[in-house]
Formats: sequence, C-alpha cells, structure tokens
Amino acid sequence: MKVIKTISEVKKERHNLKGTVGLFPTLGFLHEGHLSLVRQSVRDNNFTISSVFVNPMQFGPSEDFDSYPRDFDRDLTMLEEEGVEFVFMPSTQEMYPEGYDTWVDIENITGKLEGASRPTHFRGVTTVVAKLFNILEPTRAYFGQKDAQQLAVIKKMVKELNMNLEVIACPTVREPDGLAMSSRNTYLKPDERKAATVLYRSLKLAEKLYFEGERDALKIRREMTSLIQQQPAANIDYISIADNETLDEVDKITRPVLVSLAVKIGKPRLIDNLVLE
Amino acid sequence: MKVIKTISEVKKERHNLKGTVGLFPTLGFLHEGHLSLVRQSVRDNNFTISSVFVNPMQFGPSEDFDSYPRDFDRDLTMLEEEGVEFVFMPSTQEMYPEGYDTWVDIENITGKLEGASRPTHFRGVTTVVAKLFNILEPTRAYFGQKDAQQLAVIKKMVKELNMNLEVIACPTVREPDGLAMSSRNTYLKPDERKAATVLYRSLKLAEKLYFEGERDALKIRREMTSLIQQQPAANIDYISIADNETLDEVDKITRPVLVSLAVKIGKPRLIDNLVLE
Repeated sequence: MKVIKTISEVKKERHNLKGTVGLFPTLGFLHEGHLSLVRQSVRDNNFTISSVFVNPMQFGPSEDFDSYPRDFDRDLTMLEEEGVEFVFMPSTQEMYPEGYDTWVDIENITGKLEGASRPTHFRGVTTVVAKLFNILEPTRAYFGQKDAQQLAVIKKMVKELNMNLEVIACPTVREPDGLAMSSRNTYLKPDERKAATVLYRSLKLAEKLYFEGERDALKIRREMTSLIQQQPAANIDYISIADNETLDEVDKITRPVLVSLAVKIGKPRLIDNLVLE
Repeated sequence: MKVIKTISEVKKERHNLKGTVGLFPTLGFLHEGHLSLVRQSVRDNNFTISSVFVNPMQFGPSEDFDSYPRDFDRDLTMLEEEGVEFVFMPSTQEMYPEGYDTWVDIENITGKLEGASRPTHFRGVTTVVAKLFNILEPTRAYFGQKDAQQLAVIKKMVKELNMNLEVIACPTVREPDGLAMSSRNTYLKPDERKAATVLYRSLKLAEKLYFEGERDALKIRREMTSLIQQQPAANIDYISIADNETLDEVDKITRPVLVSLAVKIGKPRLIDNLVLE
C-alpha cells in the first residue's frame, strides 16, 4: 500500500491505473462502519484509494476540529489489511493553500437538519469532496447511510454538476445493542453509552408504527419524542421525517421517507436514521 | 459536425473520442474574436467541441439576457467551417433542471471590477463552466483575454478545485481602429461606435506611459481618466490597475499588472484590458 501526501504525485499514480477505481474518503479514526465501506469498494473495483484527511472546512469555529479523535498509524494498518492500494493523506496546506477561495455550495437541502445547527458544515464537505473527485477521478465513491444528509447532498452535487462517477451508499453498521458506529462514540461516558441506544430504539419504534399502518408523520414523531424523553441524559436537537431526496418535511407518508434525528447524550451529539419505504 | 442537445448523448460521444479534446465555450453570436479561439483549439487538439449556450445564471435580473444577440444558425455554419467536430447546445432545462441548487462560488476575486456591478455574474460563469468541464472533459479549454477577470476567475477555479485540464488564454482580437470585438458592440449607434475607440486609446496611453518609465498607478489612471472624459458619450464605471492574478489594486507597478476598464458609451457598457509586464 502506497501512502501519498501530494496532489501532483497522487494524480500521477491515478493516471497509471487501468480499470475501475473506488474512493473511500474519510476523516480517519476508523471503525467497523468505515471498514464495511472499504470492503465494498475493494470488492467492486480493480483498485481502491482511501483519502484520510481531517478537513478543517467542515468543522465550525466552535466545533471539535482540534479534539477530533485521530490515530493515523492504526488507520493505515487497517486500510492495508483490507487491501487498499493507495492512501492519499494531504496536509491542510496542500488542500487549501494560502489565498484559497473556491467553494462548492448547495442551497436549500444543506440548510435543514444537520445544516441548521452547522451552517458552514456542508459547504466544507462538498468542497473537499469535489476536490477529491477531481484529484482521484474515482469510478465509484463510497459513503455511509449513517450520514444520510451528507449522502443526499453529495448525490445532488454529483448529479447537478454532472460529475462522472457513481455514489454508492453503504448501510449503517451498528453495535450489538443497535448504537450506530461513529468516531464520536468514544466521547460517551459509560452511563451515556447506555442511554445512547435510545436513538436506534426510537427509529425502530417509528418503523414498527409504519409497518402497522401509521402514515401520520406528526404522530410518529410524537411517539419517538416521548420514548427519548424517558432518558434524562437525552436532549433532542431534531427529529425529522422527510422526503428521502429533497429532505423536505412531510406530514403524511406517501413515498420513501428518511426518519432522522440528532440527540445530545450528555455532551456528545449523536445522529442516526432509517429509511421507510 | 454533430450538434448535440442532451448531456447524456454528448457524454457518450466524448467517451468514444481518443486523443486530445479542445473546448470552446461560448454564448454564441460569434465574431472574429471567437473564431481566433476556435482556430487555436482546432490547431492544438485532435477534436474540438464548442458549447453554445446563453447561460441565464450569469445575467443579473436587470441585465440583457432576453435581448442578448442570438443567431444560432449562423454560429453553427461558422463553427463547421472552422473544423469543429461537435457542438453541444443544451436547453436551459437540460443544464438547470427543476430544483437546481448547486453553485461553484469563488470569493474575493469575484467581488471586484466586473463583479462589483454584477454581483451574481461570476457565480453563474464558474458554475456553468464547471458543469461543461465535467460534461465534456476537455484536455484544454479556450478563453479570451478580452474578459480578463473571467479568465483569472476560471484559472483560479481550475487550480483550487484541482481540475484536470489546461486553461488557454487567447489574445483580444480588435477592429482596425482598436475596438475590442464583442457581441455587445452591435448595440452601439454610429456615433457611439466612433467614441468607443477611446477604451483602447486609453489603454495604449497607459502602455506608453509605462514604457516611458512611469510606475505610479494613480498617475496612469488619472491620465486615462482625462482622455476618456474628453468623450461626452463616455461614462467611466471603473479603471483598474491590479495584480494580474489576484486582481488586487496596486499603487506602484512592480510586477505584471492588468490594466482594465469598463466604460458606458451611451447605453452599452464596454470593457477592455491590457497586461503590462
């Protein structure tokens, strides 16, 4: 496995590759959730490139960029074991040189849900992902369903800017008790870790109600809310039942919807989601 | 020459091309200035694709989108005569389908000069050009030095988004009396057409002063201003002497500078420029 730090060198390597190339972009600190994406890419493509870059532009000024968990040596070992051929690991300076001014910005869909409390987050994501797509020219790029809004935003960018690749969504990987895997789970104290299962339990409740025939989004949201409020450590940021593509909230469920939520469990803020179709 | 109206079809044609591809993107209503770009592309590349699209997103709400001169049949005849292989001529709906929300936005450099009086202009330009680059994947793309700020903005976008192509700048083509060719020249009444030569004459005056050793940008600007003010029909929007890459104004000329200006001659607003190095 080759680890490459500069854009010019990784572009040169890329141009020598014949066949399909899968891209797995990550902030690092890998867990099983990430590895399921890597494995899918290794299965689907002749080559897999992983980018490991803690992108400062997708963190707000008061967010956890500095304290975001990092363990690059461990990440590299894990990627090599999965059969990744190239890791692109640029510096911030390499990606955003002095005087950097260019942004890919998507309106409307990025202002809701995660974007409502993180106003510059998605601009940072779409910009770095557009850069990575141009640098690495993947045939396919792999993103987790866990970050459902990010997935919808990236799919919209690829479609609207007419980019030449396929976006592959991979299912959320969960702990045995249902908690969605996330690098931020390491922030949870033991009692918070237990309370955190309420996100998935509330999603399963929504699914159960839906399967029983409930189509009133307000009613489903109300049931989820009362379940979560039984946890004293839990503090709901949002519970959304929205069109799976536009992320517009719905009242009646008549087409596939994304049920998603963000809940603070003590300090850490966790997200999870599930598609009803 | 093939004329293609859909993105999917032109992408298919593009993928069958082996060798280098030149892109000449235009709003149409071609003149000799455009043709010099087309000829350069035909000389440099195995294939040339021209896009002809009056991009509504680069016109402000009060600008001349509806009245912008169009003669697509004549454009197609001219492009065919120059040896262009493909013309991509999409509808507005094809480029910006319902719910379109994705923008490529460049800060700072786009707020000056042309951008100061046309606040959404460059966002429209960079977005459509990024789309065309993804759709047509050119080896080289050709732009006129006439739109100097557009050229600087597109070069910055290509560099900062790490796009895989070369931007080629082509010199301004002029009428025998020095007026820079422009589709908007057709708006000039006969007496205005005569007065319009003052833009180029003021640039040549700047060049003369520079060659004589003048390095004080304020003095050069003052001389240009008084020359232009001798024309009663002329109304100066801006005269700029700026760094050729960042477009930051300079006081002393110590490195290559772009001397550029926008002047209303009657109703039509004309631009021109010249690089001093």
